[in-house]
Amino acid sequence: MIVVMKRGATPEEIQHMIRRVEEFGLKAHPIYGTERTVIAAIGEKRDEYRQSLESGPGVAEVVPILAPYKVASREVKPEPTVIRVGSLVVGNSHVGMIAGPCSVESEEQTLSTARAVKLAGATALRGGAFKPRTSPYSFQGLKEEGLRILAAARDETGLAVVTEVVADEDVELVARWADVLQIGARNMQNYRLLEAAGASGRPILLKRGPAATMDELLLAAEYILNAGNPNVMLCERGIRTFETHTRFTLPLASVPYLHERTHLPVIVDPSHGTGHANLVVPMACAAIAVGADGIIMEVHPNPETALSDGYQSLDFDQFGQAMTLLRKMADCMGRQITLNEEVPAPA
Amino acid sequence: MIVVMKRGATPEEIQHMIRRVEEFGLKAHPIYGTERTVIAAIGEKRDEYRQSLESGPGVAEVVPILAPYKVASREVKPEPTVIRVGSLVVGNSHVGMIAGPCSVESEEQTLSTARAVKLAGATALRGGAFKPRTSPYSFQGLKEEGLRILAAARDETGLAVVTEVVADEDVELVARWADVLQIGARNMQNYRLLEAAGASGRPILLKRGPAATMDELLLAAEYILNAGNPNVMLCERGIRTFETHTRFTLPLASVPYLHERTHLPVIVDPSHGTGHANLVVPMACAAIAVGADGIIMEVHPNPETALSDGYQSLDFDQFGQAMTLLRKMADCMGRQITLNEEVPAPA
Amino acid sequence: MIVVMKRGATPEEIQHMIRRVEEFGLKAHPIYGTERTVIAAIGEKRDEYRQSLESGPGVAEVVPILAPYKVASREVKPEPTVIRVGSLVVGNSHVGMIAGPCSVESEEQTLSTARAVKLAGATALRGGAFKPRTSPYSFQGLKEEGLRILAAARDETGLAVVTEVVADEDVELVARWADVLQIGARNMQNYRLLEAAGASGRPILLKRGPAATMDELLLAAEYILNAGNPNVMLCERGIRTFETHTRFTLPLASVPYLHERTHLPVIVDPSHGTGHANLVVPMACAAIAVGADGIIMEVHPNPETALSDGYQSLDFDQFGQAMTLLRKMADCMGRQITLNEEVPAPA
Amino acid sequence: MIVVMKRGATPEEIQHMIRRVEEFGLKAHPIYGTERTVIAAIGEKRDEYRQSLESGPGVAEVVPILAPYKVASREVKPEPTVIRVGSLVVGNSHVGMIAGPCSVESEEQTLSTARAVKLAGATALRGGAFKPRTSPYSFQGLKEEGLRILAAARDETGLAVVTEVVADEDVELVARWADVLQIGARNMQNYRLLEAAGASGRPILLKRGPAATMDELLLAAEYILNAGNPNVMLCERGIRTFETHTRFTLPLASVPYLHERTHLPVIVDPSHGTGHANLVVPMACAAIAVGADGIIMEVHPNPETALSDGYQSLDFDQFGQAMTLLRKMADCMGRQITLNEEVPAPA
Repeated sequence: MIVVMKRGATPEEIQHMIRRVEEFGLKAHPIYGTERTVIAAIGEKRDEYRQSLESGPGVAEVVPILAPYKVASREVKPEPTVIRVGSLVVGNSHVGMIAGPCSVESEEQTLSTARAVKLAGATALRGGAFKPRTSPYSFQGLKEEGLRILAAARDETGLAVVTEVVADEDVELVARWADVLQIGARNMQNYRLLEAAGASGRPILLKRGPAATMDELLLAAEYILNAGNPNVMLCERGIRTFETHTRFTLPLASVPYLHERTHLPVIVDPSHGTGHANLVVPMACAAIAVGADGIIMEVHPNPETALSDGYQSLDFDQFGQAMTLLRKMADCMGRQITLNEEVPAPA
Repeated sequence: MIVVMKRGATPEEIQHMIRRVEEFGLKAHPIYGTERTVIAAIGEKRDEYRQSLESGPGVAEVVPILAPYKVASREVKPEPTVIRVGSLVVGNSHVGMIAGPCSVESEEQTLSTARAVKLAGATALRGGAFKPRTSPYSFQGLKEEGLRILAAARDETGLAVVTEVVADEDVELVARWADVLQIGARNMQNYRLLEAAGASGRPILLKRGPAATMDELLLAAEYILNAGNPNVMLCERGIRTFETHTRFTLPLASVPYLHERTHLPVIVDPSHGTGHANLVVPMACAAIAVGADGIIMEVHPNPETALSDGYQSLDFDQFGQAMTLLRKMADCMGRQITLNEEVPAPA
Repeated sequence: MIVVMKRGATPEEIQHMIRRVEEFGLKAHPIYGTERTVIAAIGEKRDEYRQSLESGPGVAEVVPILAPYKVASREVKPEPTVIRVGSLVVGNSHVGMIAGPCSVESEEQTLSTARAVKLAGATALRGGAFKPRTSPYSFQGLKEEGLRILAAARDETGLAVVTEVVADEDVELVARWADVLQIGARNMQNYRLLEAAGASGRPILLKRGPAATMDELLLAAEYILNAGNPNVMLCERGIRTFETHTRFTLPLASVPYLHERTHLPVIVDPSHGTGHANLVVPMACAAIAVGADGIIMEVHPNPETALSDGYQSLDFDQFGQAMTLLRKMADCMGRQITLNEEVPAPA
Repeated sequence: MIVVMKRGATPEEIQHMIRRVEEFGLKAHPIYGTERTVIAAIGEKRDEYRQSLESGPGVAEVVPILAPYKVASREVKPEPTVIRVGSLVVGNSHVGMIAGPCSVESEEQTLSTARAVKLAGATALRGGAFKPRTSPYSFQGLKEEGLRILAAARDETGLAVVTEVVADEDVELVARWADVLQIGARNMQNYRLLEAAGASGRPILLKRGPAATMDELLLAAEYILNAGNPNVMLCERGIRTFETHTRFTLPLASVPYLHERTHLPVIVDPSHGTGHANLVVPMACAAIAVGADGIIMEVHPNPETALSDGYQSLDFDQFGQAMTLLRKMADCMGRQITLNEEVPAPA
């Protein structure tokens, strides 16, 4: 950290802050500039003391130098994490393709979608059984019955199941039925849930909150990693900005940015990230072009009758055409969209 | 709702959408404009069908006309809700003043703060026992021991205790010790928690999420109200914008906006809303000027040594001076900052 | 437009608003809903009357149905506009590749860059002679001398020259030397400049302002089109959001969105849109994947010594490698990056 | 500046950057931390070299320590600037009250407004003669005829006239008729205009752009100050955020923030900052509570028929009531809203 003193800071204030830095077990290295004094605080300690130092007398600001996350950091583990779970593989040369309905509405709807997306080349099935909904008056999901339907779809198609868990007390139940636990954008900083997900042993798909910074996303992942679970997929699903022509703004530069900072794979969700079916495929292409390790996409037999998110869902035909293009795109980038069992074991 | 058809929509598409609107039990009222057709969908039904209609063929967009929330709406209950709990009263002519440390760190720290803020005129005590922290490496709160300390402070000072609950399974425990349950910004859309808070019987202070719209905030309140709890205080604590000179951007216009839409009282948090101690008092003044029903503010015996949020905490002297100014300001606005027991019963 | 009345609007207020709508030459079509009345205002008139209607008694809001722009609209001209100027062609199957230094610093720097980008496959040369700079203490450009150098680079390489004009009184001068006039993000709503650019006869590259909505961008283009100049390229260069890991947030969904709304070609600027050289190439790939009609990119012989924007500039090697990838990507999307003269005339 | 090297930076890269810092005439002070090396660059030089240093090999980022603006800085001139022009005085204990129509529409409309706002206590008249409008199809202002009308209103009422200038070539004309030249939000970074305004000798009211940071606003002011004009009033008029219930988000914390950083007075525009007449007065109160040196507000004889911005304009009665409250508020804050001639000369 660099403690930047105010222009008029007194020698006493500077001495005080040097002492404070040292009390935290850091080495204080003051630099007397022409207009201001700054104190470099050297050591392995992270963010914890930043807040205390910022409240010191004569301090203008404290500038962090080290990233606040550790285990997620590429500095700690330079090689990319590849996650394999059932049919799904993401990371390195593998692009996972997770497709399915927003909500599990019925066995028929879910199974027909699972069959269609498998046929078109998807490598995992998504579907919501527990639905966090903005309005208490909206459909809230089939809950455990939904999990059972998803498992039936896996049994038939072989596709790994990705589904959301919305509360720590549900983790055990959802982990019993699903292959990958999704933590939704609204829960990105639900730390009790993150810890429970960390303890579950299941791979986690962690969605970025719509107002979360990259550091906050990585610190949320750190909660899971810290709880002993190394298999975290980060998911960019859009942020809230002044743009209203899309439901959220999907900032794809976060993919290469994250790839530099972390070894964790990065998935992109163009369905929530745009909120309009006609923008989903172009943005899925762009996500692969920018280096995403996976795509998660909403597909429904008949989007017009979907109980949620129909306006951003593709139908089977649209998804089939999208997959043709996305495979070409992955190929162009030297990557592949393939089921886990078809992938030859690494040398 | 108004279903806006695309310019080139065919008569078949228009007929199809008229049928869809009618299937939802709404009356369809098509209007054939010079460039486009729009279909007004009339009835009491709300948002639920909007998504389905948006996926229809030839539809450009669906424009809602009615607010998606009901019980929170001023149209349903025109008179403002006044909440009285222990020493605290908020709403109508009463401005509540909730002050105390970000975290409960020790009995000594909490009691001395409670005494100081009581003396200066605060009407409730805040303090975090369960602390949701961005980093897993930060101080996470004293938990149940913190609740015990808060209750001791109430016993001595008579101040009502406001403290955060971070998970639905903790609601019962926290409700045993606290007077008001705070739901933090990160948990504004943790619906399981909202429902548990609704069932607790305790008044709830619901903080706006940093990317939440006004409708989303009111729908979150609706989850609590719907669970049978009429005592919800909304809290504006800042949104995330491109501004970096403040920790969040505190949009005070949300206070009069909410007062027009809802009967629920609105509290402002200038500590989190600015993130800098020197901006807290000016923004607290502005909050009262704009009509806030309460202020929640961080106060610490020695902000420099606080385990969290020291940079935005006032010390006792600063808080005392702030209260002098805030009382003057409330008086100027025809309102009062007084302990509940001192308030004469309404005629 | 739809005039939405407040819930409690009186019959007099509704009658008043019906009369107001009719006074504007629109047909008023009131719809009496269960909770509110709305008045559809039918006719060809646009935004102009919206503001007046919004101030009417008992009005809750006015919802526009028609886009406020006309000439730029795809509804008016369904086929995409292709712009050809010197070596540059953008639109339809053609992807233009505009590369060069942020600032023209010297003849040597500009000519060597022009040669290098030509060799690598660029189809136009960019370079700033008039530089709008945030700080009055920063390098402000070589001005007319810079234009002369750019023209010399065109004479030698055959590359069309794209350069910024910052004031209406400079349009004539810049148009004398340059092939395409760029209007920068800061000047997107400098209407005097837009009108002068419209009158210049030169194709215009119009950059989106960092807080501009899509409608505002298209209305800015409308100023130019209205002045009789049909050759406007829109340029997405990033918006301001809470993200700080990139200089701006580059929302690529605006490309397919604009393609639906307007016939004008859309260029993407990944240099300003990210602000980091290492993010430029991934985002350029993504831009082509999402359907951009051109890329504008900063290239410098030695970014470390650039007088401006070095941190987001590629060197010659990086640009050469980028072009290899971008050509592959364009090919994958069924498009081509080629000099205008090499393009066979359309059938 | 602090040059932060990447974790794996080589000794050669570090040496290279030390040399670079020294080449810029700064003193390099390397600090070898446990995880990274940082190089403090000491000297009076500002931002200029930051960009170059950021492009250096092995550099992670460059953190500025000094503010990029100089003449606007409170460090250079600690006492607040008070601006007196005709009837208007802003700064220190004086709160200016600038009121009038968005657009000058006619002599009758402007004069009646001038009389009404004078009577209610306004200290200056606003009114737009040159109107920058988002759409080319909207009313563009009466131009020179509008200036003549404003001058007539000043002649009759004695109120100083504040009006916008939209292009550098108009500065001389507008300065001939007006007392204060307003530079609008869209032109905050129109540097040619800023320089011309600086040369005009007239006090300038400089509006913040809706995506401008505080530093960018102060650097825009610096262009004017640098051109020899010390009389700049900064105006906060709202920023663009995801909020849609207000036209812009008015971040009042910028007032005390700016007061700490600069000696220039700060005006608040609650009309544009909210975009709804019913939110204007509460936010004007809040602006005074937070320490604003002036308010600029839209008033119209009949907002419903205004040619622009009627939805955010007060009528005469509303303005009269507002003034009663605002005077009380100013009094509460120890400040005064008075015409310049009535102010006793400072001791």
